[in-house]
Amino acid sequence: MAQLAERLGLKPEFLPGDWRHGADPAAIEQRLRHDSDRRIKAVCVVHNETSTGVTSRIADVRRAIDASGHPALFMVDTISSLASIDYRHDEWGVDVTVAGSQKGLMLPPGLSFNCVSAKALAAARGATLPRSYWAWDEMLASGKSGFFPYTPATNLLYGLREAIAMLEEEGLANVFARHQRHAEATRRAVRAWGLEVLALDPTEYSASLTAVLMPPGHDADRVRKLVLEHFDMSLGTGLGKLAGKVFRIGHLGDFNDLTLVGTLAGVEMGLALAGCAVKKEGVQAAMHYLESAHRDRVRAAA
Amino acid sequence: MAQLAERLGLKPEFLPGDWRHGADPAAIEQRLRHDSDRRIKAVCVVHNETSTGVTSRIADVRRAIDASGHPALFMVDTISSLASIDYRHDEWGVDVTVAGSQKGLMLPPGLSFNCVSAKALAAARGATLPRSYWAWDEMLASGKSGFFPYTPATNLLYGLREAIAMLEEEGLANVFARHQRHAEATRRAVRAWGLEVLALDPTEYSASLTAVLMPPGHDADRVRKLVLEHFDMSLGTGLGKLAGKVFRIGHLGDFNDLTLVGTLAGVEMGLALAGCAVKKEGVQAAMHYLESAHRDRVRAAA
Amino acid sequence: MAQLAERLGLKPEFLPGDWRHGADPAAIEQRLRHDSDRRIKAVCVVHNETSTGVTSRIADVRRAIDASGHPALFMVDTISSLASIDYRHDEWGVDVTVAGSQKGLMLPPGLSFNCVSAKALAAARGATLPRSYWAWDEMLASGKSGFFPYTPATNLLYGLREAIAMLEEEGLANVFARHQRHAEATRRAVRAWGLEVLALDPTEYSASLTAVLMPPGHDADRVRKLVLEHFDMSLGTGLGKLAGKVFRIGHLGDFNDLTLVGTLAGVEMGLALAGCAVKKEGVQAAMHYLESAHRDRVRAAA
Amino acid sequence: MAQLAERLGLKPEFLPGDWRHGADPAAIEQRLRHDSDRRIKAVCVVHNETSTGVTSRIADVRRAIDASGHPALFMVDTISSLASIDYRHDEWGVDVTVAGSQKGLMLPPGLSFNCVSAKALAAARGATLPRSYWAWDEMLASGKSGFFPYTPATNLLYGLREAIAMLEEEGLANVFARHQRHAEATRRAVRAWGLEVLALDPTEYSASLTAVLMPPGHDADRVRKLVLEHFDMSLGTGLGKLAGKVFRIGHLGDFNDLTLVGTLAGVEMGLALAGCAVKKEGVQAAMHYLESAHRDRVRAAA
Repeated sequence: MAQLAERLGLKPEFLPGDWRHGADPAAIEQRLRHDSDRRIKAVCVVHNETSTGVTSRIADVRRAIDASGHPALFMVDTISSLASIDYRHDEWGVDVTVAGSQKGLMLPPGLSFNCVSAKALAAARGATLPRSYWAWDEMLASGKSGFFPYTPATNLLYGLREAIAMLEEEGLANVFARHQRHAEATRRAVRAWGLEVLALDPTEYSASLTAVLMPPGHDADRVRKLVLEHFDMSLGTGLGKLAGKVFRIGHLGDFNDLTLVGTLAGVEMGLALAGCAVKKEGVQAAMHYLESAHRDRVRAAA
Repeated sequence: MAQLAERLGLKPEFLPGDWRHGADPAAIEQRLRHDSDRRIKAVCVVHNETSTGVTSRIADVRRAIDASGHPALFMVDTISSLASIDYRHDEWGVDVTVAGSQKGLMLPPGLSFNCVSAKALAAARGATLPRSYWAWDEMLASGKSGFFPYTPATNLLYGLREAIAMLEEEGLANVFARHQRHAEATRRAVRAWGLEVLALDPTEYSASLTAVLMPPGHDADRVRKLVLEHFDMSLGTGLGKLAGKVFRIGHLGDFNDLTLVGTLAGVEMGLALAGCAVKKEGVQAAMHYLESAHRDRVRAAA
Repeated sequence: MAQLAERLGLKPEFLPGDWRHGADPAAIEQRLRHDSDRRIKAVCVVHNETSTGVTSRIADVRRAIDASGHPALFMVDTISSLASIDYRHDEWGVDVTVAGSQKGLMLPPGLSFNCVSAKALAAARGATLPRSYWAWDEMLASGKSGFFPYTPATNLLYGLREAIAMLEEEGLANVFARHQRHAEATRRAVRAWGLEVLALDPTEYSASLTAVLMPPGHDADRVRKLVLEHFDMSLGTGLGKLAGKVFRIGHLGDFNDLTLVGTLAGVEMGLALAGCAVKKEGVQAAMHYLESAHRDRVRAAA
Repeated sequence: MAQLAERLGLKPEFLPGDWRHGADPAAIEQRLRHDSDRRIKAVCVVHNETSTGVTSRIADVRRAIDASGHPALFMVDTISSLASIDYRHDEWGVDVTVAGSQKGLMLPPGLSFNCVSAKALAAARGATLPRSYWAWDEMLASGKSGFFPYTPATNLLYGLREAIAMLEEEGLANVFARHQRHAEATRRAVRAWGLEVLALDPTEYSASLTAVLMPPGHDADRVRKLVLEHFDMSLGTGLGKLAGKVFRIGHLGDFNDLTLVGTLAGVEMGLALAGCAVKKEGVQAAMHYLESAHRDRVRAAA
C-alpha cells in the first residue's frame, strides 16, 4: 500500500509494527490526534496480512479513528480474507474495501472489487490525484444498466455467480467456522511440532493462513523446496525480512478437513526430510482437534 | 463373470475361495486335469478383485494352465488394475484381457478395452455364441484405417491420449511403485489401528485398493456414512457376504502421498466418531513409512 | 436392428423399402395379418433413419399393428430424433423406445435410454433370450433408491441434467419448431441447387438431418472431402447402397439459424469446388425462408 | 489514449481525423516539425481502431517521425490487431506496443502485454510520472527467473501457450491471409447490400473488423437488437459520434469461412427484418469471393 501511494506521489506514513501483531488501534488513534491540521487523508489497513498470517481488528481501528475525531477515510484491503474471514464493510464503517477473486472466492485472478462508502464517493468527486481503477464514476454510471464500461472478464463473472452460490449453499457462518477450525487445527500442529506461530495475539490469528517460524539454524526455503519436490505441494515463502525464517500454510477457499490433514502431513514430513528435529506429532494434534469438533456435531445431532 | 456367462446360457463353474485369497493356481490346474473331455472353454480370473483388495497371481495361473496341458483360453479382467498394477498380457500368455477407462487411466467411465491373442481370435472365428462387444471383426477391420465402426466416444479418446501421456511422463515403473508405496502405507495404518486387512497373502495384496475388516460388533456402513457426512469422502462398501463387515479404501489413479494421508485421516477420524475403539496411530504409521520412502530418495540423490 | 437380432440367434424378417420412404404401415399390417400363428414377437422401427433422413410415422404404424389385431411388441429407435423431433412413447403406444445421449440431448456419447411399457416388462419376465442392457430388473430395482447397479457415467448424468434444463428453458415445442424450420430451409436450399432430397414423402421429411442426392456422374465423397479440407466441416457419408450417391446434412441439437446458413454455405461452395454444375442459389433460398419465418415473429410481436 | 493521458495530468494533443481514415503520417510529421522545443514526448497511434475498422499505417508513421527528426517515443496500441493483422514492433521501430489477450490471441480478457524498446526503457528510467503497469522494472527483474512479481493469471498463461501453438500450427502468414480474406468477403457483402464501409482508404481497411454505415433514416442499434433477438448474434455498436449510424462486424480470432457466412447472413436478415431496403445479395457476394479464393487453392494443389 505504501509503495502504491508513493508511486502516485503521495507521502505515506508507515506506522511500524513487529510483523507479529496487527495494526495497532491505539497507535493509529494517537497519530491521528497529533494530526491537528488534518493532513492525513486516509488510514489504510490490511485486514488479513498474507505475509504474516495476522488479522487486524478492523472494528477496533474504526473505534480508534472515531475516538480521535479525525475525518480521515478508512481503507481496508481484504484480498486474503473476503469470503474466508468475517468482514463487515458497512457495520465497521469502512470507506473503501478492496478485494480480489483469487482467494476466498475460489476463482482465478482477474476480478477485483471496490466497496465504497458515500463519504469516499464524495471525496472522490473533489479529488485531483490521477487514478484509473478508483475512477468509480464510469463503473457506477454503467452499473445502473448492468453493463461494463470496459471489456468485461465475462468468464470470471459467470464463475463469480457460481462461487457465490456455493458460499450461500454452505452458509457464510459455516464457511467462516470452517476456516477457524482449520486455522486452530493448524496452530495445534505447529505447537505439537515444537514450532512457533508467527502471530502472537490470539485475537489476531488469521483463519485463512498460518505463518510458521522455523527453528534457528534451518532454512524455511529448503523445507519448501523438499515439500514441493517430494509431495507436489507449494508452501508460501517468507517475504521481506522473514525470508528463510518463515513458511506459510494456506488454508482458505475450497478446502476441507482432509485437505488440511494432507497439507499438514506434507509439512511434517518435509520438516523431517530437511533434518529439522521437530516432534512428529503435529498431524496427530490437528486430527485430535478436528475429530473433537466433529464429535460435538455428532452429539448435537443425537 | 459367472453372472455374465449365465446370461449367455453358459454353465460357468465357479471355483470357490475364501474371499481373502486370490485365484488358486493349484486348484485351477487340478480342475483342468480332471476335464478329460475338454469341455472347459476358458479360465476366467479377475486380476485385481475390487470387492476384496486381492490381486491374483496371473503368471502363476498361466503356469498352472500350461502344466495341466489343457487348451482352455485364459481370460483376465484388469478393470481395477490396468495402469496401477504391473500387468503383462503377452508375457503372461493371456488370451483376452478386459479393461476400462475409469480407474487407473483416470478417465470417466465410457471406454473399455479388449486385448486379444491370436488364439482367442481363432476361437472367435469358429464360435457360435451370440456376442456384441466381443464381435471383434468389425473393430479390427475399421481399426486398420483408424476409424470406429460405431459412434466413437471422441471426448474420451482425447482424454485417453492425455492420460497415456501423463503415465509415460511419470514412467510406468514409477506409477506402479507409487501405488505399491500407498498400499503399504495403508496396510501399516490399518494394523496400527488394530484392524485387519482382508487380504491374507502378502504376495496378493492389492496396490490399488485395500479392504479393511471392521472390529466385531461394528457396522462398516455406519463408519462410511459418518465419513461421508463429516469429511465429504466416499469409502467403498462391503459387497455380498462382506456387507457391513468391510470397508474399502481406494488408492489408485491420480493420487499422491498427501491425498493418501488425507484419506487415511478421514478413516481414522470416522472410526473414532463411530465409537470404534481403534488406536489412533494409523495416520502416524503411514506417514512414518512414507517419510522413510522419501528419505531413501533424498539419500539416493545426495 | 436386423443385425443385432441375428447376433442373438433370432430370425428377423426385413420388410424391404426403397430407402426413400419410411416404414410402411400398410405393409406392416398386412404382414402381421398373415402371421396367423403369432410367431412374430416384435415390430421394430427406426423413428428417424440417420442414413436416409426419413422419419417414419410411428403413430400410423401403431394403428396398423392395432388394426391387424396382432399382439407383437412395438419397438422404436429414436436415437437421432429424441429431443429434436416430436415423439410420444405413451401416446403412440410404443413398448420399448431406445435413445442415446449424443444427438438431440447435445451430450457426448455414453448414455443410452430404454423407455419400457408394462407389456414389454411382462414379456421380459418370461423371456429366455440372453440379454444384458435389456435385463431391466437390476436397473429398476436400483432406480427406486436413485442408485446405479453398475459404474455410472456420473459426468454425463450431470450433463444430462443441464441438457434437459436447456431444452425446458427453450420449450420443447420451440425446439421442435426450430428443427422443422431448419429442415425446411435446408430442403429449399437443396432444390434451389437443382438437387433432390432423398426422402420423397413430405410427411416423412426428417427434421434433424437431410440426405441429398448427388447429380449423376459426381461422387458425393469427393464433395465431402473438399468441404472438410476447405471449410473444416464434416458432412455425413452415404451408407450402404447410397455410398457415393448421397451426402447428409445434420441440423440437430444445439444449432441455430446462422449455424445452418454457414453449413449450407459450406455445401454450396464445396459442390462448386467439386465442379458440380449446381445453381448457386441454395443459401439464398434458405435465407429467404428463414427471414420470412422471423418476419412472422416480428409481426406477431408488433 | 487521450483520456488515459489526461488522467495522469498530461496534456495530450489530439490530431483530429474524420473517423474514416487512419492516423495521417503527413500531419504527424508536420506537427512534430513545429515542436521546435521538443515538448512532445510521444506519438501514440492505435494500429487497428476497433470503433471504425480502420488500420493505421504504422511503418509510414515511423517514417514520418524519422523525417521530422523529432526524438519523440512511438507508442502503438495493437489490442484488436495482434495475431490477426501483420505487425512488426522491431522492424517498424515502435518504442512501446500494447496488446491484450482477448482478441487475436483467442483468450478471455486478463492478460496485457507491453513490448518495449531500449529507448523506451531508458526514458522510463528517468521518468517521474506516476505509473504502475508501465513500471517495467519489477517485471523485468522477475522475468529473468521466470517468475511474476505479482499474482499471475496462471490459467491464462496456460491458455496463451496453447493459443500460440495454434497460431504457429496454422502459420502466422496463413492466419493473416485468412483475416484478409474474411475482411474482403465482408466488404463485398456490404457493397452488395448497397451499403458503405466506413473506412475509405483501401490501404487502411481493417482485417479484423468492418464498420458499416447504415442507410439514412435507419437506426443501427435497432438492427443490432433484432439480430441479437432473432439470431443470437451480438454486433458491435457505433461509438461516440457514430452511435446509431454504424454497426460493426467482427471477424477475428478463431473464425473460419463458414462462421463468416453465418455472420453475414445474420446481418443481411437483420437488415431486412428492420425494414432496410438493402439488396439481399451480400451473402451471395461474399460466398462468390470465398469460393474463388478456395478455387485458387484447388488449382494450386492440382
